[in-house]
Amino acid sequence: MRVRVLVRPKRGILDPQGEAVRSALPALGFEGVRSVRVGRLIELELESEAEVEAMCRRLLANPTTEEYEWEVVG
Amino acid sequence: MRVRVLVRPKRGILDPQGEAVRSALPALGFEGVRSVRVGRLIELELESEAEVEAMCRRLLANPTTEEYEWEVVG
Repeated sequence: MRVRVLVRPKRGILDPQGEAVRSALPALGFEGVRSVRVGRLIELELESEAEVEAMCRRLLANPTTEEYEWEVVG
Repeated sequence: MRVRVLVRPKRGILDPQGEAVRSALPALGFEGVRSVRVGRLIELELESEAEVEAMCRRLLANPTTEEYEWEVVG
């Protein structure tokens, strides 16, 4: 079973990677991007989804500064 | 318009972040995870999807070591 976890900085939390991308875009000729948020994509191959929620809380995301969602993708 | 870009290490490319997560899981009591790949989630707010492909190739992903996909999510 394949599970995809998306982790992103919570709203209001500084996102320096996103800010770096946003400010680099105009210099490359890309206009019209209002905001960029950069988070993590984590793909797991595992036997059961039973413990994914606990893995997210305890290891994959920092619940103080990040929010996460996950889904079975295959 | 909101676009979600997923960037992941290509198959065969070393993924030290994924390996670090995979090796940490058993110590936390999580068994049965066969593989972990860690990539980036990039969420853009922009006016048109016309240039997203070019942004991916030129800035958001490294085409030598990473693969990417993107979709409009709202």
